[in-house]
Amino acid sequence: MSSPDSQTPAVNESNANDKPALKEREAKKRKLSGDESEMLASSSSNMSAFKEFKLIKVLREDDRHKLINLHGSLPLKKSDDDSGSGPVDSNSEESDAVVVLERKPFDPTSIEECIRQTKTKETLHNDIYSTFEIFSTPNKADMRATLIFPATEKHISKYSEHQPFIVNETPDLYRDVTLPCIEASKFSIQWVYNILDKTKEADRIVTEDSDPETGFVLIPDLKWDRQKMESLYLVAIVHKRGLRSLRDLTAEHLPLLKNVLQKGQAAIKEQFGVGSDKLRIYFHYQPSYYHLHIHFSHIRFDAPGTDVMRAHLLSDVIDNLSINPDFYKKKTLSYVVRDSDQLYEAYEDNGYFQ
Amino acid sequence: MSSPDSQTPAVNESNANDKPALKEREAKKRKLSGDESEMLASSSSNMSAFKEFKLIKVLREDDRHKLINLHGSLPLKKSDDDSGSGPVDSNSEESDAVVVLERKPFDPTSIEECIRQTKTKETLHNDIYSTFEIFSTPNKADMRATLIFPATEKHISKYSEHQPFIVNETPDLYRDVTLPCIEASKFSIQWVYNILDKTKEADRIVTEDSDPETGFVLIPDLKWDRQKMESLYLVAIVHKRGLRSLRDLTAEHLPLLKNVLQKGQAAIKEQFGVGSDKLRIYFHYQPSYYHLHIHFSHIRFDAPGTDVMRAHLLSDVIDNLSINPDFYKKKTLSYVVRDSDQLYEAYEDNGYFQ
Repeated sequence: MSSPDSQTPAVNESNANDKPALKEREAKKRKLSGDESEMLASSSSNMSAFKEFKLIKVLREDDRHKLINLHGSLPLKKSDDDSGSGPVDSNSEESDAVVVLERKPFDPTSIEECIRQTKTKETLHNDIYSTFEIFSTPNKADMRATLIFPATEKHISKYSEHQPFIVNETPDLYRDVTLPCIEASKFSIQWVYNILDKTKEADRIVTEDSDPETGFVLIPDLKWDRQKMESLYLVAIVHKRGLRSLRDLTAEHLPLLKNVLQKGQAAIKEQFGVGSDKLRIYFHYQPSYYHLHIHFSHIRFDAPGTDVMRAHLLSDVIDNLSINPDFYKKKTLSYVVRDSDQLYEAYEDNGYFQ
Repeated sequence: MSSPDSQTPAVNESNANDKPALKEREAKKRKLSGDESEMLASSSSNMSAFKEFKLIKVLREDDRHKLINLHGSLPLKKSDDDSGSGPVDSNSEESDAVVVLERKPFDPTSIEECIRQTKTKETLHNDIYSTFEIFSTPNKADMRATLIFPATEKHISKYSEHQPFIVNETPDLYRDVTLPCIEASKFSIQWVYNILDKTKEADRIVTEDSDPETGFVLIPDLKWDRQKMESLYLVAIVHKRGLRSLRDLTAEHLPLLKNVLQKGQAAIKEQFGVGSDKLRIYFHYQPSYYHLHIHFSHIRFDAPGTDVMRAHLLSDVIDNLSINPDFYKKKTLSYVVRDSDQLYEAYEDNGYFQ
């Protein structure tokens, strides 16, 4: 792991985590999906777009997912005929670039051929067990990359490793530090109201209960393509306004929570054939936006944000409020903030981290 | 994802999850680490150990971690001089093989050279964003494999995808189904007693409090190499016997739990320089063995078993028992079982899954 010793200026984002908010992801998705077919045409497969890449810094390594984020430079005038549309700095021949490089998953349809054509070096042999280092001879692409060029400081920061810190948020810390930070950030949730009012994305709604107190809208998360049931991911957004997160819930909201649990499970069973014994149903705390919403993801999907430091099962929340009506007004909640988060700054300013 | 429609016979394991029990992992590690240097000698890097591999079935795909488990066959008499020590079936020229193939993480020291030598195919270009399919020309190994050959049905099952199911375990279900299953499995925890009694692994102990009621032994988990602090992983095993899991805890155990929390954090800070704001401290439920133990892992380590469906923060457990002394005698606990688990069979026999 590269150590994020010298951090670039923090990105001004109000969500207390590294997952972009739904709105941002949506905007990004729309931007990237515009007329892909046309863009696919002008490609060259015999040369590297990176042959003049100079590495400046490894921003982040993710060994488990075989991914690496790089900060480097590339010449502004590319050697092929590709006319970049980004801003050009006339005083320099090179500009900053961010490259996200990821190895590809194996393709089961070509795996037999792939493994037969490798070169292998046995590293261990003990009884029936052997291990090998393998050199592939790829005739299919074995990696994929995203290039951001020219890149700004903000891009570089976004793809950098940010130092994580655990906050043990007592009710007093919530009142004195977290809540003022949420209110100060004035993070717009108009896009949520657009969904609830059906002025946007009405065609994506899977089910709705329009009751203003106990109702909700269930829509697919943008991470889910609606094809693979093993990566099923939906979000229930409650109609009731003014509930920021788990922290605002008391026993008076039990009818709302039970309604979301029951009707959400039923709709997913009916429309996608996925039963409740396959559904992980949970809140995020901190959430990425402060209008109450509940995540439904397939247990075979290793979705981001399912770690015990962030996810809270809806069934546990219902149990806890049934046992103790003010549970989330009394409970210390632990979560991770990163040094690029506004919430980190708020706690840092408060002297929370020694 | 390959669908595990036709399951091979279940492996007779008592742990209700896909992580091997500590003892098994230890045994495996010891077996594999025996005189590696000697074994490294007789290797050939110009041919593939898999050139005659025939694919029978893809057992499991893990796209997120770029890993695939294969069931295939290989000739029993290998073409090089490697004399296999496994059992030979004289009626057949081939035998079953299990291959675990995994792409390697990127090596930051050679990443610049690696990326410059690739061939790229642009798949999208929009403003400053581009994406590429990449063909690498590896001059370092880009994959690694584990081969089990000849493999038995048990090996094949172990590396297959097993269907997961959520159990919502009420206190009644615990008493009627889970507890009898745990007791019937007679899973030996003698190896735990060996650690506590210091007849084994005494040299690995990081800290100990020998009090029979509130004491514990803190040792590194075998997944941690004690080198990289970002993958720090230790386990506290309590001295008190007869506590199987979270389910057995009441307010009377608060002194034990608080002692583990405080002294565990202090020892890790002192010996490894990792502060409590970097430590995820939690129980597993279900655990992989039924003697009470607590996991300490670095929050930058994406350790297995940190999902909200399995991990329970020690600080939450302390809070819950402080608020309600019998919390875990009343609480419904949700977790995942797989169709290879004894616990799955126990619930299936009970008619829990429709």
